Amino acid sequence: MKSLASDNNAGVHPEIWPVIQAASQGASLSYGHDVWTEQMQATFEKAFGSQSQTFAVLTGTAANVLGLAAVLEPHQAVICSQMAHLNLDEGGAPERFLGAKLITLPTPDGKLCLDDVLAQIPAAEDEHRVQPRVVSITQPTELGTLYTLAEIRALAEALHERGLLLHMDGARIANAVVALDTGFYDMVTATGVDILSFGATKNGLLCGEAVVFLKPELARRFHFVRKQGMQLFSKMRLIAAQLTTYLDSGLWRRNALHANQMAAYLAAGLQPLPELKLYAPVQSNGVFVTLPAALIQALQAHTAFYTWDVLPGMPVNLVRWMTAFDTQKEDLDDFLAQLHAALEQWRNTP
Amino acid sequence: MKSLASDNNAGVHPEIWPVIQAASQGASLSYGHDVWTEQMQATFEKAFGSQSQTFAVLTGTAANVLGLAAVLEPHQAVICSQMAHLNLDEGGAPERFLGAKLITLPTPDGKLCLDDVLAQIPAAEDEHRVQPRVVSITQPTELGTLYTLAEIRALAEALHERGLLLHMDGARIANAVVALDTGFYDMVTATGVDILSFGATKNGLLCGEAVVFLKPELARRFHFVRKQGMQLFSKMRLIAAQLTTYLDSGLWRRNALHANQMAAYLAAGLQPLPELKLYAPVQSNGVFVTLPAALIQALQAHTAFYTWDVLPGMPVNLVRWMTAFDTQKEDLDDFLAQLHAALEQWRNTP
Amino acid sequence: MKSLASDNNAGVHPEIWPVIQAASQGASLSYGHDVWTEQMQATFEKAFGSQSQTFAVLTGTAANVLGLAAVLEPHQAVICSQMAHLNLDEGGAPERFLGAKLITLPTPDGKLCLDDVLAQIPAAEDEHRVQPRVVSITQPTELGTLYTLAEIRALAEALHERGLLLHMDGARIANAVVALDTGFYDMVTATGVDILSFGATKNGLLCGEAVVFLKPELARRFHFVRKQGMQLFSKMRLIAAQLTTYLDSGLWRRNALHANQMAAYLAAGLQPLPELKLYAPVQSNGVFVTLPAALIQALQAHTAFYTWDVLPGMPVNLVRWMTAFDTQKEDLDDFLAQLHAALEQWRNTP
Amino acid sequence: MKSLASDNNAGVHPEIWPVIQAASQGASLSYGHDVWTEQMQATFEKAFGSQSQTFAVLTGTAANVLGLAAVLEPHQAVICSQMAHLNLDEGGAPERFLGAKLITLPTPDGKLCLDDVLAQIPAAEDEHRVQPRVVSITQPTELGTLYTLAEIRALAEALHERGLLLHMDGARIANAVVALDTGFYDMVTATGVDILSFGATKNGLLCGEAVVFLKPELARRFHFVRKQGMQLFSKMRLIAAQLTTYLDSGLWRRNALHANQMAAYLAAGLQPLPELKLYAPVQSNGVFVTLPAALIQALQAHTAFYTWDVLPGMPVNLVRWMTAFDTQKEDLDDFLAQLHAALEQWRNTP
Repeated sequence: MKSLASDNNAGVHPEIWPVIQAASQGASLSYGHDVWTEQMQATFEKAFGSQSQTFAVLTGTAANVLGLAAVLEPHQAVICSQMAHLNLDEGGAPERFLGAKLITLPTPDGKLCLDDVLAQIPAAEDEHRVQPRVVSITQPTELGTLYTLAEIRALAEALHERGLLLHMDGARIANAVVALDTGFYDMVTATGVDILSFGATKNGLLCGEAVVFLKPELARRFHFVRKQGMQLFSKMRLIAAQLTTYLDSGLWRRNALHANQMAAYLAAGLQPLPELKLYAPVQSNGVFVTLPAALIQALQAHTAFYTWDVLPGMPVNLVRWMTAFDTQKEDLDDFLAQLHAALEQWRNTP
Repeated sequence: MKSLASDNNAGVHPEIWPVIQAASQGASLSYGHDVWTEQMQATFEKAFGSQSQTFAVLTGTAANVLGLAAVLEPHQAVICSQMAHLNLDEGGAPERFLGAKLITLPTPDGKLCLDDVLAQIPAAEDEHRVQPRVVSITQPTELGTLYTLAEIRALAEALHERGLLLHMDGARIANAVVALDTGFYDMVTATGVDILSFGATKNGLLCGEAVVFLKPELARRFHFVRKQGMQLFSKMRLIAAQLTTYLDSGLWRRNALHANQMAAYLAAGLQPLPELKLYAPVQSNGVFVTLPAALIQALQAHTAFYTWDVLPGMPVNLVRWMTAFDTQKEDLDDFLAQLHAALEQWRNTP
Repeated sequence: MKSLASDNNAGVHPEIWPVIQAASQGASLSYGHDVWTEQMQATFEKAFGSQSQTFAVLTGTAANVLGLAAVLEPHQAVICSQMAHLNLDEGGAPERFLGAKLITLPTPDGKLCLDDVLAQIPAAEDEHRVQPRVVSITQPTELGTLYTLAEIRALAEALHERGLLLHMDGARIANAVVALDTGFYDMVTATGVDILSFGATKNGLLCGEAVVFLKPELARRFHFVRKQGMQLFSKMRLIAAQLTTYLDSGLWRRNALHANQMAAYLAAGLQPLPELKLYAPVQSNGVFVTLPAALIQALQAHTAFYTWDVLPGMPVNLVRWMTAFDTQKEDLDDFLAQLHAALEQWRNTP
Repeated sequence: MKSLASDNNAGVHPEIWPVIQAASQGASLSYGHDVWTEQMQATFEKAFGSQSQTFAVLTGTAANVLGLAAVLEPHQAVICSQMAHLNLDEGGAPERFLGAKLITLPTPDGKLCLDDVLAQIPAAEDEHRVQPRVVSITQPTELGTLYTLAEIRALAEALHERGLLLHMDGARIANAVVALDTGFYDMVTATGVDILSFGATKNGLLCGEAVVFLKPELARRFHFVRKQGMQLFSKMRLIAAQLTTYLDSGLWRRNALHANQMAAYLAAGLQPLPELKLYAPVQSNGVFVTLPAALIQALQAHTAFYTWDVLPGMPVNLVRWMTAFDTQKEDLDDFLAQLHAALEQWRNTP
């Protein structure tokens, strides 16, 4: 099967197997009371600074919801984009677990704009209204676009001045760091992000999600929240070992770089085709285009992908093509050839 | 490190690695839209009957909580033992996710007694009281004891007559089936259990938990509940493949049999020691004994284990020794030798 | 103090005191097991049809949230206007108690439009997305506008065809019925509304809110939901007696008619003033106007009222003037005189 | 109808009507932004000390649940008696709204014992276990018994030393203060209680419940919690005025004294009857007795009351007789005569 449906359609990167197998040898205390979990914490401190505290969880949805649960009271609210995964693709997990409201803002390019955010922060407390406490951004966004470091910093500063926090959904954080040619510390810690959902499952791990608190006081109650959130895995060492190697070996960078390059390659292949229009600039590993609707089904028969009119007002002929660490250039060539041929036939259909 | 602390201190069984690796080859749709998940469903139907519906989740706490969430309204309640994992060891996850009350009953041997359960079921609806909807039993119990098939059947029948459901926490279900020399179908489906938490992580899998609904109508909303419960794993095929092989290859039986035999071996080694008293009969893979308190710390330095005075009224010198699929007879001999020596010294201490 | 801030700034209508006092005589079983509650049910059946079931609660927020809780599972969602009281003014109570998401739609005139609603109902179930189950409309809306009976009927029919339900927030339902010159049955039952929040506190009662289920099966679990929602008042007869008299005596109509007439009178008085623009047509007992911002504070010193730029994009000089059953024409004349004078002075300020 | 079923079977005390009617005159800002609410706060400061903060709510269940919600995180737990109203009679409202566990302890006389409480407070944090944060006692208890001031003080001190808080469910607090011949300050503030549910509806008000925080920092988020808990009443002044008069006029004391005296009178009338046994000492306004089961139904036909075998192990022939501010000595004489006659007949039945 060929797939551009999602980067989570990929399997596990070959370098990961020996890591998990080594960690699996012999007995060990469970639930993270082990040396692999200690190493993971140390490795993340190297990446995110000595104040950071890192907790593995099992799904990206859990990373987002529990990271927010660590700091939110139910009468408080989270501001996010209408198209945030948090809002659109988590089946209502935030509302159910947090008991809190998401205040959603329209974002044509996937990015929250500072002025829109500030307009949601009331001057005075009013008990009839939910009280914004956290702003959540996704980096890269759900449209594959990127916040610049300056934009993140401006958001964080404005929020901190008003007593709010900044959460970053980093389900594809490695793709963002590579695309911006920066580092984890510079993009996350130095810009003022408070809580990070660190995702690595989409970039080659069997299972590797974590919540990273950049300020230790925010992590105060998180070990309880994680357990109550049903995310305290017994064989934690098997997750921790993956995350450590992922950062230490540079696998994160190599995989993300490849995925980003494959998206750029695919986007380049679309340029000669005037009927296809990029819906958003290709800045990481996703390509969002509109194309003649008649082509979609035939193309999906060749390679799996999703239509992406996920919000009112989006064109029904919008599709998403995601590349991954294991995307093969040959498969993209094939897909482009298929696309060219289908388009040619479509042009000639009366 | 040597451990009798928990069967989840073991790693992954060697037969499992090639299974996960094979499932990881190439691309596949995520979130369970894959052939491995279909195979898992088919395999579980062979074990639990053609009406059963099986959904993988990531932790045992999630299996319990979400299995209950599938059938519970918040004003309804769950009846369980005071020492149920659900009540004692899940960090309040049931209350937080279900918004419902656990009605807990004292159970000296870990087993709910039918009369005590029936005493909790009111004759008439009263809006001031929570309404029992599900009774949850653990098999084997948290004390390693077992319900007989007749006991399970009697509970199920009495509950069904009153419009209630029976849930079984089967975190160690293979150990129970082996100990009772029965089968999954006979112990679970034929006795009338409605919802099963099927656990395999403790018995050799990297990660393998599932909720099995024995009546399809109970599963109606579960795919939503699982997603909202943050347990819809993207690379689901990697879990499904493990669970299929686990059942198909008989690994479940071999591993559980060994663990149970090791517990029996350990218990037999205690018989000559009058200062040690079994707190519960050894019926599966746990040994619960009281021993001179002065010995505990020295023994723990040799082999990890927990004291187990988890409820008021339990002796402070109660300990739990769990065996697993990878417990070595030599290690038990060593441990027994250590125990004998420590005891000898203790006897001679004035 | 003079107030156009809200119709809940009024006290209790004089006809209500003897009713509560009579109901308070002697002992009675509590929690609604009394004859006054039976009478209330019978009276509401006369108004809403013999299939209706009516339950008193204590606040309008509770009527909305608990009415929805009666029919919602947490993975389901409610569609409502962005400016719905449910979304904007209930402090996150829906999310906290329901654990469910509100899908909010922009509504320039306060009214949900059928096409926008239908665009939110997915063709197929997708576990990543919340599933719309109820659409909530407010009648009259938060801008004082009205759905016609045909509009309500069209919504209900379209929803029922798709397996969804229609909820009506009737915090000011009497004002709507009077304004449309119709009846409760015709506006609510005959149009196909499923659940109604019936509000009477704003229209002269000491405390009189209720949830009316128009189809008995929807009320199945409500007595439990109300208790769990902390709304089961012990001296229920004192609420029930008010609601019965309110409907039986025609007080609802007299009070609402007066309030609506006062709003029309106020609006008429604004017509000669070109600087004041109606933001929405005056159809019930609220007047929403934009006026020179410089006037607001001085006017508020004379008569209490709120500015109403409650959503991004609303003009900052928008204000809300609500009339009530006790609004005096003389007070409006006074207020208009004040307004004229302030405006004259403003015009002459360089 | 004659009733000993509950003190909430009584109506409103005559002195209360003019108070509510006066407060209802004219317009006033709603939701507690009014002078009556200010007066209530000042009056409660006189009773409970200048640090206290008082918030009216609408039901006793809400006072309990929301008072706890003000200080609890969901992974934390509340310790209370098995027979606490909080546990037994609130329909699961605590679990639903708090998302937290109640740890319940057996209490033969209704009173939590310090040693039992301390046994529930773990020495170290363990994420698998809920973390006790608040202990809730009821004064008088659900069996009408009383904690002495020394007992309350000892509990509070022990809890504060361990970082926990003490909540008092004072649904009938006036009866306790009168019975102990003390004052609100001495029984609540001076003993170290942190949060009080102050109930007055059972003692003569139309509606008068409040949460009193004895330490202002605990009230920090309560105005949001109350709104989210659906308890922010629009015509708040009508509640506030009642509560102010209730304390200021001494009505609380007169009513409670009468109710307590009536209970004592009833209990005295039982002494000559050897077949009736007090189940708990009569210390406030409740009489709990066991009597020949055959008599119950006939007596209930004369005067309403409830059987009270509310927990496993309680005798099925236990009944509860509650007196109230409006209980008439003549009615008790009648009831006792009825009882004597029924008993006489029963003795003579072969």
